[in-house]
Amino acid sequence: MSKTKLHVGIIGAGRIGRVHTETLAFRVPEAVPLMIADINCEAAEEVAARCGVPHLTEHAEEVLDDPRIDAVLICSPTNTHADLIVQAAEAGKHIFCEKPIDHDLTKIDRALAAVEENGVKLQVGFNRRFDANFARVRKAVASGEIGKPHLLHIISRDPAPPPISYIRVSGGIFLDMTIHDFDMARFLIGEEVEEIYTSAGVMVDPEIGKAGDLDTALIVLRFKNGVIGTIDNSRKAIYGYDQRVEVLGSDGSISTDNCYPNQAVLRTRSAVWQDLPLNFFMERYTESFADELRAFVEAVLQDKPVLVSSIDGRIPVVMALAARKSYDEHRPVRLEEVG
Amino acid sequence: MSKTKLHVGIIGAGRIGRVHTETLAFRVPEAVPLMIADINCEAAEEVAARCGVPHLTEHAEEVLDDPRIDAVLICSPTNTHADLIVQAAEAGKHIFCEKPIDHDLTKIDRALAAVEENGVKLQVGFNRRFDANFARVRKAVASGEIGKPHLLHIISRDPAPPPISYIRVSGGIFLDMTIHDFDMARFLIGEEVEEIYTSAGVMVDPEIGKAGDLDTALIVLRFKNGVIGTIDNSRKAIYGYDQRVEVLGSDGSISTDNCYPNQAVLRTRSAVWQDLPLNFFMERYTESFADELRAFVEAVLQDKPVLVSSIDGRIPVVMALAARKSYDEHRPVRLEEVG
Amino acid sequence: MSKTKLHVGIIGAGRIGRVHTETLAFRVPEAVPLMIADINCEAAEEVAARCGVPHLTEHAEEVLDDPRIDAVLICSPTNTHADLIVQAAEAGKHIFCEKPIDHDLTKIDRALAAVEENGVKLQVGFNRRFDANFARVRKAVASGEIGKPHLLHIISRDPAPPPISYIRVSGGIFLDMTIHDFDMARFLIGEEVEEIYTSAGVMVDPEIGKAGDLDTALIVLRFKNGVIGTIDNSRKAIYGYDQRVEVLGSDGSISTDNCYPNQAVLRTRSAVWQDLPLNFFMERYTESFADELRAFVEAVLQDKPVLVSSIDGRIPVVMALAARKSYDEHRPVRLEEVG
Amino acid sequence: MSKTKLHVGIIGAGRIGRVHTETLAFRVPEAVPLMIADINCEAAEEVAARCGVPHLTEHAEEVLDDPRIDAVLICSPTNTHADLIVQAAEAGKHIFCEKPIDHDLTKIDRALAAVEENGVKLQVGFNRRFDANFARVRKAVASGEIGKPHLLHIISRDPAPPPISYIRVSGGIFLDMTIHDFDMARFLIGEEVEEIYTSAGVMVDPEIGKAGDLDTALIVLRFKNGVIGTIDNSRKAIYGYDQRVEVLGSDGSISTDNCYPNQAVLRTRSAVWQDLPLNFFMERYTESFADELRAFVEAVLQDKPVLVSSIDGRIPVVMALAARKSYDEHRPVRLEEVG
Repeated sequence: MSKTKLHVGIIGAGRIGRVHTETLAFRVPEAVPLMIADINCEAAEEVAARCGVPHLTEHAEEVLDDPRIDAVLICSPTNTHADLIVQAAEAGKHIFCEKPIDHDLTKIDRALAAVEENGVKLQVGFNRRFDANFARVRKAVASGEIGKPHLLHIISRDPAPPPISYIRVSGGIFLDMTIHDFDMARFLIGEEVEEIYTSAGVMVDPEIGKAGDLDTALIVLRFKNGVIGTIDNSRKAIYGYDQRVEVLGSDGSISTDNCYPNQAVLRTRSAVWQDLPLNFFMERYTESFADELRAFVEAVLQDKPVLVSSIDGRIPVVMALAARKSYDEHRPVRLEEVG
Repeated sequence: MSKTKLHVGIIGAGRIGRVHTETLAFRVPEAVPLMIADINCEAAEEVAARCGVPHLTEHAEEVLDDPRIDAVLICSPTNTHADLIVQAAEAGKHIFCEKPIDHDLTKIDRALAAVEENGVKLQVGFNRRFDANFARVRKAVASGEIGKPHLLHIISRDPAPPPISYIRVSGGIFLDMTIHDFDMARFLIGEEVEEIYTSAGVMVDPEIGKAGDLDTALIVLRFKNGVIGTIDNSRKAIYGYDQRVEVLGSDGSISTDNCYPNQAVLRTRSAVWQDLPLNFFMERYTESFADELRAFVEAVLQDKPVLVSSIDGRIPVVMALAARKSYDEHRPVRLEEVG
Repeated sequence: MSKTKLHVGIIGAGRIGRVHTETLAFRVPEAVPLMIADINCEAAEEVAARCGVPHLTEHAEEVLDDPRIDAVLICSPTNTHADLIVQAAEAGKHIFCEKPIDHDLTKIDRALAAVEENGVKLQVGFNRRFDANFARVRKAVASGEIGKPHLLHIISRDPAPPPISYIRVSGGIFLDMTIHDFDMARFLIGEEVEEIYTSAGVMVDPEIGKAGDLDTALIVLRFKNGVIGTIDNSRKAIYGYDQRVEVLGSDGSISTDNCYPNQAVLRTRSAVWQDLPLNFFMERYTESFADELRAFVEAVLQDKPVLVSSIDGRIPVVMALAARKSYDEHRPVRLEEVG
Repeated sequence: MSKTKLHVGIIGAGRIGRVHTETLAFRVPEAVPLMIADINCEAAEEVAARCGVPHLTEHAEEVLDDPRIDAVLICSPTNTHADLIVQAAEAGKHIFCEKPIDHDLTKIDRALAAVEENGVKLQVGFNRRFDANFARVRKAVASGEIGKPHLLHIISRDPAPPPISYIRVSGGIFLDMTIHDFDMARFLIGEEVEEIYTSAGVMVDPEIGKAGDLDTALIVLRFKNGVIGTIDNSRKAIYGYDQRVEVLGSDGSISTDNCYPNQAVLRTRSAVWQDLPLNFFMERYTESFADELRAFVEAVLQDKPVLVSSIDGRIPVVMALAARKSYDEHRPVRLEEVG
């Protein structure tokens, strides 16, 4: 695009829609949030007022139909993502879509085909790639600082499980939570996974089991280049959100610690201690949410490839399906069996 | 004030003026940057364009005369601060002034008298109080988590000395650099210092010595409540900016580590290592610069006391003068001898 | 036993035999090393002289036949362990035997039966249980400090692979190296494993693959109480020996860092760094080698149960066989399939 | 000496005498503890039995008169050190003497003169030089790893004050406690101090003040090469023994953390924490006590210079006297004013 400002429409004024609109309004000078849509009028109004968005609507179609809008942010519920991608692509809008695109590969493929056919850009919201810690690990792997990678560990634990009502529609732990880690694994190693083995259970809350889901999982990834990876997921780390990775390579290793609200260490009569880690993904990943939007705006304005592309939206879903199949059938599952 | 938006004029479009204007424009919804003044037109224009400031001028007076403006940010060179405070106070504007107010106590006292007489608020730009690490230490001391404080250490090292041309007009290391640490000492302990002893030298660059200044200093503070504190200053820590504190109390201690761009640790054939610390005060204190302005805007709009007040602008200057006198006369100096 | 001194015979004057003899001679006042046997006369002589052992012999039988000797330390090659246990048990000697007892379950069972029948004590040399770090983790799990355990991680990496000639007779990575981690897993969780899944490869040295062995492995353990564990093994962590564990439980987690020769941190122009970790198992586990012998001597003298018993010598071998079978058959393997 | 074994007599069977005797008996193969003397018969007997020392006596003279004894360890009360050094030197014995030699410079000088005249070796018990952490810091300074040193910090805090009865005869905090840090300062920088300034108080226990002593001190050292150092002393760090140092140089810094019984980190509902540091100097410095004796035995047997020599026993006492004089006269004091 030869423009210097990107006019953006936001679909969905929920939690993540509000965060993204604030970022565009206050932290990305090249972006202009022009319209926000939500069937919940009040939510849209509140965000629009706060961020100075001049137009608001109940109908996503209005965003898609507005010729002044260059790009859309899809922040609505997951089951609307695929259709909205198709519509946006057909309307010629560039698209930033929250993860996952869908739980169903057929719908994902239809959406990606529409993106392809209409020549628009699609960036998927795997924000963690933009976190300074994980970016540093990727750099170490990509630059050869630690040689050829051999083993990967991802620790990814939530502070508390979501409500059971959410669990029921979440698509299950692998599509809802591990999906970020599947993306992280591919990002860090820079290679595809060919086989997955899952060991998992219900350890946190039996209600999660009754809802047909799991709350604790250990997933083994076998990459095409031979690297072996693990993902450690728990729905409840009582001390708070916990996100760490480690890669061992032929010339060294790199690992990242969890993130804390401050660096203070107290030493008292009973222990040497520090405050609990940042407890909420919005706090932990504040900067990466901003950075992914900056990257999207820049990719569109300068016509560069997006950093998290269509395929990056599809493969983690395949991995999630394989992880579940491995658990169900109690055996390693090759990704090609699933998608 | 019964208003919900604070209209602000900025005097000075240099580095810190630009940072503060961006913060007001993009990160403090309750503030409206209305006018920016700088004798350097281009600087003012650049900032105004970037931040959407509608008015710009070469003359600070224009800011002070504008009745729409509620508060001013004084970001001009130090030697203009005191006069501008007087003028702004007389114009009934609330004032945020960068540190130090002046190097001369008479001028400071005249400025503070004007603030007092005109009933405006004055906040001094000791941003580090708003840093999450130091705020946590203060909380531990204030809340009694570590009992009664006994010993304090402040490590405060710059990555490299400023140009000699700057050194010559800086007022010397104690007024230019240690001034932040004098404020920090008072803030952390919540008590006044009564005596200072300085041991210092020229270890980094002999040119600094030729300019009549020092580049390395160890300052011992004796507080009125008996606490003993030290400040360790170096103009050149080759590994980067280094800012740490420690307080030992009767029931424990609290200390903070330096800040790093990421948490990654590499282990290679030769060492276990991590990237250098954040190297620039703008990166290290990004959030504290924003938080001090948020606090100022809130204090004015809600008519609350500012968190860094007139006296907080005066005492660190007295301490700096005492520190130099101690060095010159090679003996402990009581603050009352100086100011 | 009503004695206050334990008279000990040592069979094998190699590396570990020497270490144990030194410990008995210099660090366990209640023990008297009375005789040392090795077919390599010089080795036995050197150790005897250094440690003041009054008798030495080429024949293990001489140790077993000596009525003054209460207990024997079996530090000879693995393939002699089982027979020596049988002979020692029949001679009524208490036994400390280096790990593993054997690679063959039939031979192990015969040895354990002899121990049982003759009512002697057998302690197996899983020294890492006595390491202060791992003991602290076990304490946290056993005492409920972290609640009910959910997930376990063991990182266990050697600084460099042994010679290929050793690899060929080692029994393979699972029997030679992972065996310590299998013991650690059981020790930390305090429960048995029921199923193992192995993902592994040859990443360090193709010669290891040609010798029929693996050099990098990720092993998933499923405990009877539902806990899921992983073991990360590499024959070559270029930065040195690396031994860490982590347990996540319902009320918290506990983890241990690797061990270093000193705590010094350097900050230079290029990085913040520390010296490499302790590089050799003898340095890393110095104290645990002494502590396991102290515990053995105490158990015998005071007729208390040994802390690492017969079953602890058998089950890790079963786990090693299951791990290999899982790798060979590319599926999770239940321990009952193997032994 | 052309001998391969050093026969040693120990004078004093108190806490430190026992530790040293155990080290000689069990950890220094080249040493033979031949006789132990204490006016308290039972103490001597207990140590002799435990360590296999063949001779014991109530009279130090018997040790000094025994021609089989090559070297003596003086572990008796401080007020006997100087006389025993003179007697031992005149008897031609090499001497290891606990710190301090005496509180009185005249007596120290008489002792050192006797050592000099009789050509015997004297090593003073500043064991901390042999600690792996501090040795690593010294290495960094000596080797130029951190360039030319500029600033030094020593933190040295006891977990709890000794009984008031001990305080009264201790010679005061500077001679009793800081003396180790004075030695450490000289050792780390490898240069002499020329001036000292002390700020101190009674913060821990008013009884200590009534006994004429201080319990909290901050001491500024000015070295001849311009380096500025601080020593932070507290008689009571409630979290335990705390021993750390930091040196900033022109090319970097090096610092050491405190020492802990294990590396485990717990994360629970309320905090991220670890166990308290090692709480007792015997645990903290176990290895350095052994290493200083090994070094002494080696220096004597191989006729090499001792690593902590006569002058190293004298100067810290001068520094202690200067530190107290600085406190009393409230001004910086040059060492030449004192000794």
